[in-house]
Amino acid sequence: MQEKLDKFKQLIAEITDLGRAEALLGWDQQTYMPRGSAEDRGNILETVAGLSHTMFTSKEMGDLLADLAPYADTLDPDSDDACLIKRIAHDYGKSTRVPTEWVSEFARVTTMGQMAWEEAKASDDFDVFQPHLEKLVQLRQAYANFFKPFDHIYDPLLDDFEPGMKTSEVQAIFNELRPQQVELLKEIAAKPVIDDSFLHIPYDEKGQWDFGIDVITRFGYDFNRGRQDKAVHPFTTSFGIDDVRITTRFDPDRAASALFSTMHEAGHAMYEQGVSKTLRRTPLANGASMAVHESQSRMWENLVGRSRAFWQFFYPRLVKQFPGQLANVSQEQFYRGINKVEPSLIRVEADEATYNLHIMLRLELEIALLEGSLQVGDLPQVWNSKMEEYLGVVPPTNREGVLQDVHWSGGMMGYFPTYALGNLVSAQLWDSMLGDIPNLEAQIGEGKFDELLGWMRTNIHQHGAKFEPQVLVKRVTGTTIQPEPYMKYLRGKYSEIYNL
Amino acid sequence: MQEKLDKFKQLIAEITDLGRAEALLGWDQQTYMPRGSAEDRGNILETVAGLSHTMFTSKEMGDLLADLAPYADTLDPDSDDACLIKRIAHDYGKSTRVPTEWVSEFARVTTMGQMAWEEAKASDDFDVFQPHLEKLVQLRQAYANFFKPFDHIYDPLLDDFEPGMKTSEVQAIFNELRPQQVELLKEIAAKPVIDDSFLHIPYDEKGQWDFGIDVITRFGYDFNRGRQDKAVHPFTTSFGIDDVRITTRFDPDRAASALFSTMHEAGHAMYEQGVSKTLRRTPLANGASMAVHESQSRMWENLVGRSRAFWQFFYPRLVKQFPGQLANVSQEQFYRGINKVEPSLIRVEADEATYNLHIMLRLELEIALLEGSLQVGDLPQVWNSKMEEYLGVVPPTNREGVLQDVHWSGGMMGYFPTYALGNLVSAQLWDSMLGDIPNLEAQIGEGKFDELLGWMRTNIHQHGAKFEPQVLVKRVTGTTIQPEPYMKYLRGKYSEIYNL
Repeated sequence: MQEKLDKFKQLIAEITDLGRAEALLGWDQQTYMPRGSAEDRGNILETVAGLSHTMFTSKEMGDLLADLAPYADTLDPDSDDACLIKRIAHDYGKSTRVPTEWVSEFARVTTMGQMAWEEAKASDDFDVFQPHLEKLVQLRQAYANFFKPFDHIYDPLLDDFEPGMKTSEVQAIFNELRPQQVELLKEIAAKPVIDDSFLHIPYDEKGQWDFGIDVITRFGYDFNRGRQDKAVHPFTTSFGIDDVRITTRFDPDRAASALFSTMHEAGHAMYEQGVSKTLRRTPLANGASMAVHESQSRMWENLVGRSRAFWQFFYPRLVKQFPGQLANVSQEQFYRGINKVEPSLIRVEADEATYNLHIMLRLELEIALLEGSLQVGDLPQVWNSKMEEYLGVVPPTNREGVLQDVHWSGGMMGYFPTYALGNLVSAQLWDSMLGDIPNLEAQIGEGKFDELLGWMRTNIHQHGAKFEPQVLVKRVTGTTIQPEPYMKYLRGKYSEIYNL
Repeated sequence: MQEKLDKFKQLIAEITDLGRAEALLGWDQQTYMPRGSAEDRGNILETVAGLSHTMFTSKEMGDLLADLAPYADTLDPDSDDACLIKRIAHDYGKSTRVPTEWVSEFARVTTMGQMAWEEAKASDDFDVFQPHLEKLVQLRQAYANFFKPFDHIYDPLLDDFEPGMKTSEVQAIFNELRPQQVELLKEIAAKPVIDDSFLHIPYDEKGQWDFGIDVITRFGYDFNRGRQDKAVHPFTTSFGIDDVRITTRFDPDRAASALFSTMHEAGHAMYEQGVSKTLRRTPLANGASMAVHESQSRMWENLVGRSRAFWQFFYPRLVKQFPGQLANVSQEQFYRGINKVEPSLIRVEADEATYNLHIMLRLELEIALLEGSLQVGDLPQVWNSKMEEYLGVVPPTNREGVLQDVHWSGGMMGYFPTYALGNLVSAQLWDSMLGDIPNLEAQIGEGKFDELLGWMRTNIHQHGAKFEPQVLVKRVTGTTIQPEPYMKYLRGKYSEIYNL
């Protein structure tokens, strides 16, 4: 069996290496690649992805798993080997159930779908996108049906991003969360609007860059095993545990955008930098799920980066960097400014109090589309009425409404809920951490983050993708994902800021 | 047969794609990769290279070639298909003759050899490197013997870099060249030394960078299909015909270094950017050989970049960029300064009049080592005596002598002569080009390079690696590689500069 295990691990290592090469090709494409080389790059990416898919779904892999899966049951279930075999068996099972014809058609339809979506968004014309989205919904229904029996047609989609999690679990959480979020937002909306005009004046890029680098270096992001570059969309990508990179961008109208984006991506990156080196060259050298990943990025961005303690240490440094912009802005004004709540149309610009509502709306629509209870043609209208119900605003155009996100055009359904779940997990972990580090806030106020990072390393990061998200959260916090800690956090924070 | 040809081309396309991915991994390693990720990167590179080797030497490839090689003989020999099949058959034949055990041992010995060489160079201790070099010479002898029968044991090594060329051809050329170069150098050494002190004062990097970019943009290097970055060693690399990148470096003591290096690498890059798009995703989307590649880089660097006509246009622009450094330096002084001849110890710093002598010395030593007529232990002493004979200088240390180049430590033997051959080809092509563009010099004096580049595109670049170097040079200039045009160029240039 040892020989088979070695062979299995070698195969997994090579497939992982190809995935890393693919990631580098993608990183380069979004950072430094000259404009003219799209065709060359497309070919290279297709070849590398195709080879890795062929290797992963090979008969050799199937045969090895047939022997190793029962063997894994004899091992310590927490051991690296047991977790690796189980995870690969899960992924292999999924990928071999999906026929090659579906994969090809999906690739073709999403390519067309993305072009149509871009055109539809640019011309604010949902009709251009509608037939493509209809086809994509059908394809995603077909995809789900490959995994029958299921409790809910959305389950196989959700499982791609949150292994083991059920739609009913997410719905139960969101049903509890939504009315509380809506109620909180109504209370805030009744209060005077916060002035954050000082965030909408020019700040030079170099100063923003330097300040962001200082912040994440203090957080513990390891520049010896990573780097930051500029890209159109901020993202984190990894070419190994010792090479986890982030990107950022600068928005001339929203000075805070680059800084919080840098903290957010550094949160993702520190997670992957912290995975145990014993998981090198395996798909376990990754986050447990998108939600757990997002818990790390949102924690550094919001629970740390938008906290009063954080700015106690960093605000004097920021004022030193930008005296012209901030000399007359008090620390309290600044803190309130970066925490201003304002129901808005666009998800990616939403504040902490409204973000989850954008997500819940999308999840409800995705589920209804998959169930067949909502037709694509009715989507814009239902979108707008839900926006009014949850956020109290109605998009004047579809461009600012149903057409705003790229996800659906790429057939990415099942992903949206992970953003909101990540917020919940961040607060839940925070509460557990406070039990172990009672003076956490004081440490943050002194610009010290090593105990915080150390706690995450021990409890979350080192395990990589060894455990399913609900299993991991329960190990660390005692319960599966719950809405209360996050609502308690939001209500506490905004009661104080808005005098609720 | 068409079906087999399609299958063959698909396989070649995928192998080429993997090679491009490997090139990107290498580029990143030398430009942006964080220091800590050497282990991860080594794994990824090994996997990608291993897969591409397996695919290239597969039974499938052998079977396809067995059918296609006779078929290629029925095609127009200048057609893309015929050239591709012949080239792959040649490379396949070579790689399948070399046993896997040799490849593994060579990889192991060169890894050790490079570490030993670094240590030997740092401590100026040849003894540290000697046993490794002895082993490498033995391995290279064994390598050559896989290709018996041959006219000369050096032939199979040379063929790796100059397909189809024989050692006897190179020796005949160099035997004619060497006495003339030695004589020219003696005449120059008898003349007063040129003052180039203005090249050894500080010039700011940004200004050097901008000036270099301006120059190569005017040359015709396409930044829409390429880019320049900084790296420890300047190099050119390609991820497709539409993505050919260069790197440069800045030497605080030698201001001209970055500029001429940028022109040199842009010469390599414009060659690959100019390959016919019909050769995309094949190994023919490359230079015909190292010598032909070097003819392009050396032409832009020297025949263009160190010419009086070039500086007629660019010197006023350079003075504008660096008034503090150059306001009191006349164009003529500058021109003489960048063309100063000075026999030196280090190849990579050698001027045009001495460079080939460094190469000829190395070739003679390589051949003697391969033949067994020279023992590795005697190398330092023979090196020094040849240096005195050809260049009139003797290295005070082995670090500045036999240990200066990285090539041998990596087992790279057969490569050195291509540098000198490239110089010869550059002058030979130049003479042919002058026949077609009589006012070439005047165009250069106006900063216009489109006819020059167009001539190279038509006569050299578009063909990629379709033809063997001697075949290509003969097609374009009427003869195979000759020493006369280069000697005529050198003598003409230096007679005027040094009043010979």
